[in-house]
Amino acid sequence: MNKFHVLLTLSLLACAATAATEPVMPAAHVVPVEKPALAQTLDAYVAGRTQRASSKYTYQWPGLYFDAAFLGPKVYFEVGPGDVILRVLVDGQPVATLAKPAPGFYEIANFANSRHTVRIEALTESQAGPNVFGGFYYSKGTQPLPVKPRARQIEFIGDSHTVGYGNTSPTRECTEKEVWATTDNSQAFGPKVAGHYDAEFQINAISGRGIVRNYGGSPGDPLPEAYPFALLDHSARYADTKWQPQIIVIALGTNDFTTALNPGEKWKTRDELHADFESNYVKFVESLRARNGEAFIIIWTTDMAEGEIESEARRVVSRLESAGEKRIAFVPLHGLAMTGCHWHPSVVDDDAIAAALIRSIDGNKTSWGTP
Amino acid sequence: MNKFHVLLTLSLLACAATAATEPVMPAAHVVPVEKPALAQTLDAYVAGRTQRASSKYTYQWPGLYFDAAFLGPKVYFEVGPGDVILRVLVDGQPVATLAKPAPGFYEIANFANSRHTVRIEALTESQAGPNVFGGFYYSKGTQPLPVKPRARQIEFIGDSHTVGYGNTSPTRECTEKEVWATTDNSQAFGPKVAGHYDAEFQINAISGRGIVRNYGGSPGDPLPEAYPFALLDHSARYADTKWQPQIIVIALGTNDFTTALNPGEKWKTRDELHADFESNYVKFVESLRARNGEAFIIIWTTDMAEGEIESEARRVVSRLESAGEKRIAFVPLHGLAMTGCHWHPSVVDDDAIAAALIRSIDGNKTSWGTP
Repeated sequence: MNKFHVLLTLSLLACAATAATEPVMPAAHVVPVEKPALAQTLDAYVAGRTQRASSKYTYQWPGLYFDAAFLGPKVYFEVGPGDVILRVLVDGQPVATLAKPAPGFYEIANFANSRHTVRIEALTESQAGPNVFGGFYYSKGTQPLPVKPRARQIEFIGDSHTVGYGNTSPTRECTEKEVWATTDNSQAFGPKVAGHYDAEFQINAISGRGIVRNYGGSPGDPLPEAYPFALLDHSARYADTKWQPQIIVIALGTNDFTTALNPGEKWKTRDELHADFESNYVKFVESLRARNGEAFIIIWTTDMAEGEIESEARRVVSRLESAGEKRIAFVPLHGLAMTGCHWHPSVVDDDAIAAALIRSIDGNKTSWGTP
Repeated sequence: MNKFHVLLTLSLLACAATAATEPVMPAAHVVPVEKPALAQTLDAYVAGRTQRASSKYTYQWPGLYFDAAFLGPKVYFEVGPGDVILRVLVDGQPVATLAKPAPGFYEIANFANSRHTVRIEALTESQAGPNVFGGFYYSKGTQPLPVKPRARQIEFIGDSHTVGYGNTSPTRECTEKEVWATTDNSQAFGPKVAGHYDAEFQINAISGRGIVRNYGGSPGDPLPEAYPFALLDHSARYADTKWQPQIIVIALGTNDFTTALNPGEKWKTRDELHADFESNYVKFVESLRARNGEAFIIIWTTDMAEGEIESEARRVVSRLESAGEKRIAFVPLHGLAMTGCHWHPSVVDDDAIAAALIRSIDGNKTSWGTP
């Protein structure tokens, strides 16, 4: 297996172009390097779920991003094991995308000797195993600066739609490798909504999972069973008192309902599946509410599964409202083009979903502002 | 990509074992060799669909097998491009299984200098592209013998169930690679039924395809549209006047019905899909009947899709019978364990399906014998 595909297209093309001319500042570059001498850890801010050991972060949920700030002309980061596509941003601008970077140290350099922010974001989904980010480092000539986390926090809980499964694919037909390569969570609706409000975000989503049943009756934790843990292996419960989202957006049910029951599954009839789905979705939202007393909760759906997801989620919201839940909205969406891999939302659909969620957030009473 | 996985386990282990003892005849071996000097083509019999150019056969439908006969201690065959798993049988006994053999010549040798049959059978499904079998060859010391095709012919038409998709997998959860590696058409019900009656067989099946709709609404020809052609690319219509099956076994509908309609598919409601399925299935069977006036036709179903496949196929059979079709049987199966990849029939289920089909064949008036 080729573990060493490093795409530095942007930066290398930029360097080649400027080499022919004169003292124009060359574009930032990202290159693998030996461990820098006397490197010191540059503290990172991480909104997403990780397991931290010294400066290393193990992560598996999608949408992870690592932020740091410094004063100087360059900075380093370390990539640990695990297949991943990473985007490197300096001062909010992408400078490189690394597909399956080899474990080791990377230098980001060639920018003005002044204050900068750097972000490493993971684009891909890693159900097969966790990834490791080895942290940021700086050496002589660079001065660390603190990162100030944004006050706003938003959490997205869901399935492949929230992951951004195959959202950049030009075709609906995709191999597993193509799904992996065309999944870009940074272009999914969650990070788009978070960016609109300049909010920190978590993407707690797993492709193929539902509330009680996974796609085609496949094995694995349904989302509410995976949700309490930092990684998908249940090795450690996730707990971070600083994560107090003001908005929680949930979309589940696609995988419970888009495939027929197989003989031998635990539900004999569609009615049994519906009853189980409703009571477990209600319980899951109640457990989120118990930990996030003030959060505004949005449940949204597509019109897939011949309307079954929408009608079932609508019942869940009604049951919650009947039980006294007031800070909740239901947003059913119709007419998405679903031209990503295997009829999944495309990046254009992601824009439409983001717009609908922004309308709901702006139109409801949330701690981010009243209508 | 590793294109050179040649598994010669059976034969090599056998050779190693006999090397330590004495003049026991070593087991047949299969090894890659240079093109044998003065090699001449040994005619092959092929029941399945191929495109032939000189001694080379291009094939893409599953279940292809190539038979030859000779008098001598060894024989050769040539493998062309395309990923495939091939099983080599001498005198009806498997002597090697080659996973992704490199293109080139192979020698089968080390058996008694007498009359032998040799069969090369393709186990895998090759939707991505065709495979090439370069034919059999013999050289000095070996004498070609004619192959006498069996009088009985049976044809199996279907989807992944007929392909044997993931039927040898120990788990329901499989990657694409695992599906490929665990699909063994030779252990699927079709070849089992054919073997029971000592009949030649064709397996005209494609995983994921239906009568009018493919799995999850995915692109590609539904089976009746792919059926007329020798390969999946429509480059040449299949025509072989010697293929006149006395029995035709069909199982379709799994992919039409096990997933919900996506908004934007050509059927707005389940009723529209049912009507389209029924009329196209009837038309397809009528077209088979037009070319095979005397064949006995069996339509069988599983109880997947919450009974929808069975009830729809039952209607198709009723409509055909109402229109005067007399040589047809309907065999609905319940209770398969479906422990292959992604809830597909396992080799144990294949035994159960084969047994049910054998009961139907034995219990009905066919040209193979009357009850």
